[in-house]
This record gives sequence, C-alpha cells and structure tokens, in this order.
Amino acid sequence: MTQIHSMHTHTCNELRLEHIGQEVTLTGWVWRRRDHGGLIFVDLRDREGVTQISFDPEHSGGTAFHAAETIRSEWPIKVTGVVRERPEGQSNAKLATGEIEVLVSHIEVLNTSKTPPFQIEDHIEAGEDIRLRYRYLDIRRPKMMANLQMRSDFTFAIREALHKRAFMEVETPSLFKSTPEGARDFLVPSRIQPGHFYALPQSPQLLKQLLMIGGVERYYQVAKCFRDEDLRADRQPEFTQVDIEMSFVEQDDVMSALEDVLRDAFAKMGVELPCPLRRMQYWDAMDTYGTDKPDTRYGMELHDVTDIFTNSSFKLFAGAANTDGQYVKALNAKGAGTWPRAKIDKLAGVAAEFGAKGLAWIAFREDGSINSPIVKFFTDEEMAALRAEMDAQPGDLVMFAVADRLGADEILGGMRCHMADALDVPREGHDFLWVVNFPLFHWDEDRKAYAAEHQPFTLPDTDDLEAIKANPLAAGSCTYDFVMDGYEAGGGGMRIHNAQMQLAMLEMLGFTEEGAREQFGFLMDALEFGAPPMGGFALGLDRVCMLLAGCDSIREVMAFPKTSSGSDLMSDAPSAVSARQLKEVGLRME
Amino acid sequence: MTQIHSMHTHTCNELRLEHIGQEVTLTGWVWRRRDHGGLIFVDLRDREGVTQISFDPEHSGGTAFHAAETIRSEWPIKVTGVVRERPEGQSNAKLATGEIEVLVSHIEVLNTSKTPPFQIEDHIEAGEDIRLRYRYLDIRRPKMMANLQMRSDFTFAIREALHKRAFMEVETPSLFKSTPEGARDFLVPSRIQPGHFYALPQSPQLLKQLLMIGGVERYYQVAKCFRDEDLRADRQPEFTQVDIEMSFVEQDDVMSALEDVLRDAFAKMGVELPCPLRRMQYWDAMDTYGTDKPDTRYGMELHDVTDIFTNSSFKLFAGAANTDGQYVKALNAKGAGTWPRAKIDKLAGVAAEFGAKGLAWIAFREDGSINSPIVKFFTDEEMAALRAEMDAQPGDLVMFAVADRLGADEILGGMRCHMADALDVPREGHDFLWVVNFPLFHWDEDRKAYAAEHQPFTLPDTDDLEAIKANPLAAGSCTYDFVMDGYEAGGGGMRIHNAQMQLAMLEMLGFTEEGAREQFGFLMDALEFGAPPMGGFALGLDRVCMLLAGCDSIREVMAFPKTSSGSDLMSDAPSAVSARQLKEVGLRME
Repeated sequence: MTQIHSMHTHTCNELRLEHIGQEVTLTGWVWRRRDHGGLIFVDLRDREGVTQISFDPEHSGGTAFHAAETIRSEWPIKVTGVVRERPEGQSNAKLATGEIEVLVSHIEVLNTSKTPPFQIEDHIEAGEDIRLRYRYLDIRRPKMMANLQMRSDFTFAIREALHKRAFMEVETPSLFKSTPEGARDFLVPSRIQPGHFYALPQSPQLLKQLLMIGGVERYYQVAKCFRDEDLRADRQPEFTQVDIEMSFVEQDDVMSALEDVLRDAFAKMGVELPCPLRRMQYWDAMDTYGTDKPDTRYGMELHDVTDIFTNSSFKLFAGAANTDGQYVKALNAKGAGTWPRAKIDKLAGVAAEFGAKGLAWIAFREDGSINSPIVKFFTDEEMAALRAEMDAQPGDLVMFAVADRLGADEILGGMRCHMADALDVPREGHDFLWVVNFPLFHWDEDRKAYAAEHQPFTLPDTDDLEAIKANPLAAGSCTYDFVMDGYEAGGGGMRIHNAQMQLAMLEMLGFTEEGAREQFGFLMDALEFGAPPMGGFALGLDRVCMLLAGCDSIREVMAFPKTSSGSDLMSDAPSAVSARQLKEVGLRME
Repeated sequence: MTQIHSMHTHTCNELRLEHIGQEVTLTGWVWRRRDHGGLIFVDLRDREGVTQISFDPEHSGGTAFHAAETIRSEWPIKVTGVVRERPEGQSNAKLATGEIEVLVSHIEVLNTSKTPPFQIEDHIEAGEDIRLRYRYLDIRRPKMMANLQMRSDFTFAIREALHKRAFMEVETPSLFKSTPEGARDFLVPSRIQPGHFYALPQSPQLLKQLLMIGGVERYYQVAKCFRDEDLRADRQPEFTQVDIEMSFVEQDDVMSALEDVLRDAFAKMGVELPCPLRRMQYWDAMDTYGTDKPDTRYGMELHDVTDIFTNSSFKLFAGAANTDGQYVKALNAKGAGTWPRAKIDKLAGVAAEFGAKGLAWIAFREDGSINSPIVKFFTDEEMAALRAEMDAQPGDLVMFAVADRLGADEILGGMRCHMADALDVPREGHDFLWVVNFPLFHWDEDRKAYAAEHQPFTLPDTDDLEAIKANPLAAGSCTYDFVMDGYEAGGGGMRIHNAQMQLAMLEMLGFTEEGAREQFGFLMDALEFGAPPMGGFALGLDRVCMLLAGCDSIREVMAFPKTSSGSDLMSDAPSAVSARQLKEVGLRME
C-alpha cells in the first residue's frame, strides 16, 4: 500500500461497510447539501468520487454543526468523523460509497467560494464558451475529471509498453527550423538573432529520422505538435502525438511492434485489440468503403455497378460505363427506402458536399413499389441485375455516384457515413484495422504538381525509380494507417534512407536540387553517413482518447483547449504585447 | 521475454559463451576493422554494444568475404553467422561479448557512408561546434548514447513513481499568455488574430495552480519550458522540468511525497536517497556554506569571526564589528597555505567576481611561519582566538570577507566553491538535501522594489500580513529547494490559495490592483471559487541527468541542444522566413 501524503486519510470514493466504526478524515468540495429532520447532509466530492457526510447537533457538537450551517456549494472543507452505516432505506446503490456515511465531529473550512457560473454537474446546459472561460470549474465535473484521468492512464500505459520493449524516450527541440510539411508553421522570432525565426514543430518527423541515423534504434516521445491551420470544429493549434521510430527494421517488424504496444496499452483500458490486426489495402478501403479510414462495424459497402449499364438507355450511366476511368457505383442504405420523397431529395445537397453534381437514387418502398426518378430508363434485365448486386429489398434506398474512381468512392464514402448517422446504424464496441499501401503521390490541382500523399520522406514500394516517374499516380508506398472507429487514429510508414532516392522524390514534388538542399540539406547530408533502414508511426493521442472516452470532440479530453479562433478564453491568449517586447525581436506591426 | 521485431536476432551486447554454435543475425555499424592473417575482423556496433564479427574466405564463402573487403567505417550492415569462441588468447575481458565472435556466412550491406568528420569514439578532440553540426554522428558515440538512454530510464522511473502514487499526468498548453515571471517570454504571433501573440510557457506554474483549483489534486507533467534569456555557458532556451503539484496538503505532505517519488526514481539509477532528507534552513545554508545550494560533501564552512575583532586595531575589521549589520567572516582553505604569494594574490580577483572589494588572508606556512598582509595589526589574543575558531594549522589559508550578512556569505560561498575546485577537494558519491524557508522577498536594486525570491504565488510562512508589510525582507516563505551535489536540482513551495492574500502580495511586488488583475486576473478569479490549499515542485530534469551522467554540461544529456547564441547548428535554426510568412502574421522587420 502506497503511503498517503495528504490532509485526508481516505478519498471520497474509498469508504465501504468494512470501514464502519473507523475515524477518518476526508477532504473535498461541498457538492450537494440537504437539511433534513434537524440534520445536515452534504455530498463531499473529490477527484475520486463522493461520500455523504452528516452533521447532527448532538454528535457533531455545536461548533461543527454551526460551521456546517454556513458552508455553501464548492467550498473546500476538511472533515473528521466516524464511518457509520446509513439508516435502513437510505443507502444509495448508484454510489460506490452509498452504504455508509461519515458522522462529522470536526470540520475545517479551507476556503470559501463564490457561486459558480454553472452547476458542477455532468449534464449542464452551459455553453462551451463559459465552460472554457471557467475551465477550472468545468474540469471539476466528474465526466471531465474521468476523461483527464483516462488520458493520463492511457498515456502511461503506452509509455510502459514502449519502455518494456526498449524504446528510448528522446526529447526533441520545440524551437526548430521552419520547414514546409503541408501546414503553416507557427513562428517564434529570435531576439539574439533579429530577423531570424524558429518554427514550432509540426511533428518531430525529421528529428526522429536523424535519431535513427544517430543509432537510437527505437525511439518514442509523447510529442506536442503545432499547426497554424484554419481551425475547424475539432482541430487545435497544438495537439499531441505518440511519436515512434525504429531502425534496422522491415515494415512487418514495425507493424508487429506497434501491434504489441497498442494491444498492451488498449488492454489496460479494457479494450481488446484483435492482433494481428486486419490489413486492408488502400484501394480496397476506398473502393469498398469510399474512405481510407473505414468504420467496418457496419456494412453498407460500395458496389461497382458500371458493367450493368454498358448498354443502358440511361445516358448518364451508359456514358460513364463506356468511358475509360469512369464508374457507376452504388450504395444501399437499408431503412431509408421508407423516407418521404422530400427527405430523400435533400440528400443531393449532402452528396454535393462530397463532390457529387447530383444524386440518382431508387427507393424500394415497403409495399413493393419503387420510387425513383431514373428507373424508367432501366430495362428489366438491368433492374434485376442491380437488385441482385445490391441485395435490394423493400425499405432500401439505393443511391448512385457517377465519376472517376476516386470521385465516386469519395461521394459514396461520404454518403455512407452520413446515412449511418442518419439511420442511427448501431456501432458497438471499437473497430481497429490497418489501411496499407497508400499511393505515393496525389495530384495537387491548386499547385499543379504532385504532392506527397503521406510525406516527402516516405519509402516507395519499389526501387524502380523509372517506373515511378513513368506513372507517378500508380506508385505505391510503404505506409500503414491505424484506423479506429472510422477515424485515422495513427499513421506511419517506412522512410527513405538513401540520399539519391530522397533527392529524386523531392524533385518529383517540384523541388529543384538547390531548393531541396536549402530546405532539407541537413537531412540529405545525414543520409550520406550510413543511414539504416527505418520506419515509424505517430498515434493521434487526442483523437484516440476522445474515442476511448466516447466523446465527440477532442476538447473534451484536453485540460485547456482553445476555441476555433485559437483563443484561450480563460487567460485571454493570444493578447497584445508591449512595444518593448516587439522591439526586442526587431519587429513591428504592419 | 519480449519478442524482438527487428532485422536482427540479438543485439551487439547480447552474445556470450552460452550462445556458441547458434546461428544469429546482427545489425549495426562497422566500427573498427582489422585485416589479419588472411581474415577480416570487424567490430560491429549498435546502440547496446559491440560484437566482433569475422570473415574468412573458406567459411564465409567468397561472396561474403568479398563484400567484407569493401565495407568501410560507419556502413550499416546485417550479418548472419554462427557464434564461436574466440581463439585462445584473443578474448577481450573489457567487452561484454569479448569471449565470442560471429563467423559470418552472409552479409547484407544496408547502406554506405561517407567518411565521418570526426571519429565515433568517446574520446575525441573534435570541437563542440562540429559535434553539434553533425549531431546525428555525435550521438553514435557510446557515451552520448548511454547518456540518452540514462535520461530515458530516469524519466520513466520518475513517471512510474508518480503514476503509482495516483499523480495524474495532464498536458498544459504551450501556446499561452505572456505573463512576466522573471525572464523574457518567447512570443508566437497569431495569424488568425493579427497583432496578438501567444507566449511559450516559462513554466506551467499558473496552469498547474488552476488544475489544483479544478480538482486534479495530484498533477505531474514532464514539461518543456522556455526562457528567452541571454544564454550563459550552460543555459538552453528550452529545458525540461518534472512539474508536480498537489492539493489538500500541508508542506510536509508535499515534501514526504516528493521524497518517496525521488527515492524510487533515483534507486532505479542505483543512487540511494537518504530519506527523510536532511532539511537545512535557508539562512543556515547561507551562513555556513555561503550559498542556498550547498555541496555538503566537503566542509570548508564559513565562520563568523566578527566578535573577535571588536577592539581590533585593524580598522577594517573593527569598523565592521562595531557597525550594525556588518560582519567579518572567514574561510579556511586547507592546503592552500602552501601556495606562493603570487598565486594567493590572484584570489582577490576571484573574490571580486563575488562582490568583494578586496581579499584579506593569512597563509599558515608548513614551517610554522605566517604570511599575511594583515596579521601585523592583530593582537596575540585576536590571533589565538582566530586560530582556535578556524582550526588553523600549518598549510592552511584563511581568507576573510567584510560585508553585510548576505554579501559576506556570497563572497565566501563563491570562494569556497572556487577553492574546492582549485584544491581538487574530493566529492564522492552524490549529496542531497532540502534547503527550506527562503525569504519571501529580496530587494531589487535595479527596479527599486521588492521582488519575489521564489515566485509571486508563494505562500508566506505567516498569515500576519501586517508583520510582512512592516519588515518585508524578514518575511519567510513556505519553500523548499532540492539540492543535489551543490546544484539547485529542484524547487518548490506552497501556494497562496486566498485571493486577498494573493492581491496583497502582488501589491507588495509593485503591482497596482488594476495591473495585477490585468496580468493575473484569471488566477485571482479562480482563487475566488473555492481554491484548496496546494503546493508543488519542479525538478530540473536536464540538470539532474547531467549530474547522474557525471557530465559538466546539460548539452551532454540533450539530443539536440543549441549553442550559446541559441542556434541549432545542424538545421541552421533560427533562420530567415519568407515575406509571405511574415505578412500572414501582420508583422514586418523594423
């Protein structure tokens, strides 16, 4: 038993029938208070739980009872008393300490409190702004406290699993060089070298590769990362990843090591990781689920129905079926076939968000009839083939996308998620898989150039540089994303450890050799000094904790998150600084 | 046994006589290579150690032997072969694997390497600049790799000790509000809110206090901290502290909990912490050792000899002895009494660095004679009393400081450290103690104001605000520094949890109420909502690791440290950024 060093002898979640008769000291906040039958009852709350304490004028003595009359919600107090069984019929089965109470003989009021701006209860109506402004009160709510505790436990479980396997924790600098890695850097002006700037790391990617070249062999770090992006609902300017890298390894070594680590860590949270994890090829995921992060707890898979319509008189489908690279794909949303027409018509707007120009659909009504703007163009054979392929039954809604492969996948992948939510498709437990072998590049229409699908440092799945150059979009990579419950919970890949290959890749991404050396010279130098084969991974800690906590937002698993405009509402950061501070770094406002 | 996921079957520090006859696969870098008697011997090095591998044309086969002829220093290779005993007389007792070698049957060259700019050996002559520029090669040196491993192990040991005791790891933001805490903030301009800035935290001090108000009760974080100070030899712009805070505690609770945690963590490194740790009052430390972070592995204590000279005809001493608040203090540097006069005279320059205007001294020569510019003014009685007080023996050098209490302490405290180094006084093992009860304030002559000795949030050791105001410099505080080997390895204190007391303290530090609310309003708001008693601690991780590694500089226990001008020589950070990047945050160069 670890010794307690605290004002209390027990936490508020510790006392049971076996403690009856013991004198104990508890500390915590006054939560709920009831005056009843000349007695005062208080629910005392600490981090761990709640214990009922009671005061009566006779046993508590006049002083304690009098003090009890003055205490109010959220006052921190320290009480000493004897544990006793609650009277018949007053025990509370919902509370771990519900069978006992503490009859207080001595109370010390540790501080007073103003009335909080919202109730310290799990179910509150308070808006998020006021919760963030008074975050120190918000985290007193049992659910928030449990989320923070869970995050701490999970983080420790991962560290423990890594430490046990001889991974070395290495701290990499937060003040580093500005290198474009997709997102915008946060800049930090230097005072000692005016006109020069550090950047906060978007990830320790290059540094961990340098550690591998340096011989660390197995590295990890729970690393704070920074991206100055326009904040969407669930993005934060700073976030945390469990960053891992290994050397003298092949891809299967890395994936197996990661499975061992993740299995151990999730097991500590009561979640079983079915190892070896399923591996799904990137294009299989895209074609079947319309996403590279499928939630496979439900089906609603995408079907390629192009061939059915080769000779169709429905020109949209036939045109696609007779054009190279164009597809007709379909999705069966079971249960939505009963929706009224007006509700179905609104789905076109949803599909548009995923890139569709319109939405063709067929509603199979419960009474056996069919409602659809397009079936009049179909032959009986086409209809029969479609019914068979889509397993269409009364009550089903089949919808179509017509586009190139990626386009059709993305439209129906988006609709699949939307329909799962709309139909409240059950998704029990957790779902884990690897999605592997991402494309090396995608085409960036804005920049009119190839862009790295994962990273500029990712190892191609072939040494044949000429083949890659001949058809860049067909090139695969040694990559693996860890998908949990339909979220990209982590991602990794093998890295290029050959200087020439790295230069060739950067050139394919539009760098001149000079530009590549200017940005990544230190990496390319390092690759010349005996870089070993290496690969690694980064787990999105915030997101995984969000999923483990069953929350909708990563803000629910962060102590002090920022708003979507990047503000900390509690401290009012970011804020203006003094002219002197600006002058010291040689800057002024535009 | 944890499963290996690697190209190798064993590390280069694993094979022993018991493995003889086994076929094994090793990976690592070619370290030293010898061609001898038609055979090729290579020391193969990985993170863990070194194994000798050998190639012979007969057993290794022509292909492997031919490949072995091409390999050069720092090429990463993978070899397979059979473990055999080294021939009679060729075993190496200094090497853990020194009794065996691996006769290679297959070799795979994983990469080539240019010739490194310096030898990968522990004892190198290379300057620090080139070591930092090629840091990825520098950390291949066994000592650097051992330092990084030790840091990882110690960090994990602390986390484990904290986790076991129900401390919750909570991540606090790195993008926070600029608040003056002594040093300059690093600023981070906001793009979404131009003209506004985040600051990187100098420490999570306020945030951890808010976590206590939020009910976390036991918090820890291995926290990156940032201070934009002019870098001295051993300061870094970013450093790491193990940050700890507890609530519902008294000072002894915190100190006992810390002792438990530190004892466990140091024990994992083979270092015994003698608990309960000695506690030394701040003024005892100052008066006896002349510093608030004494190394008590050696004596050379300071003596107050003021009273001896009350009636002295040596006016300097007598003047001090007859002036309130002035002291004559002395130090006996045993062994320096034999120094030649010229060498002794140079000590005045050293003393000047610690604030002395000159240095009076008495050299007791081995032959019984005395050499000193001042003894001619002393009476026999004064001399006898001095000899007795200072235990002066032949070979001793007694030196004096005449100043106010703090001034005399600091001069002789500095001389004590200087003389210990100059005389190479043995300091075996490690030395741990608490220094407690620091003054609440010191007088800041530059600002002409009181400044917080520890922090503006530190709890005074009395509730009597009037007494504090009447004599601020006499006020004590609930503080404790963790001193290791003469370094401040950590510091902590109890915090003010009463809003009025906090405001009063800020006012004593020169804040108006308005100014205090502007800077610390969110803290003072929070204190109004039932803040519990709290206290905490921060351990300087870099410094402790430096001491555990037996190094002189924290740079030796950091993977990627910066130079004294704040540069990363490897990546060339800080660097210029594009005009677009500046424009995005609404700034331009002065």
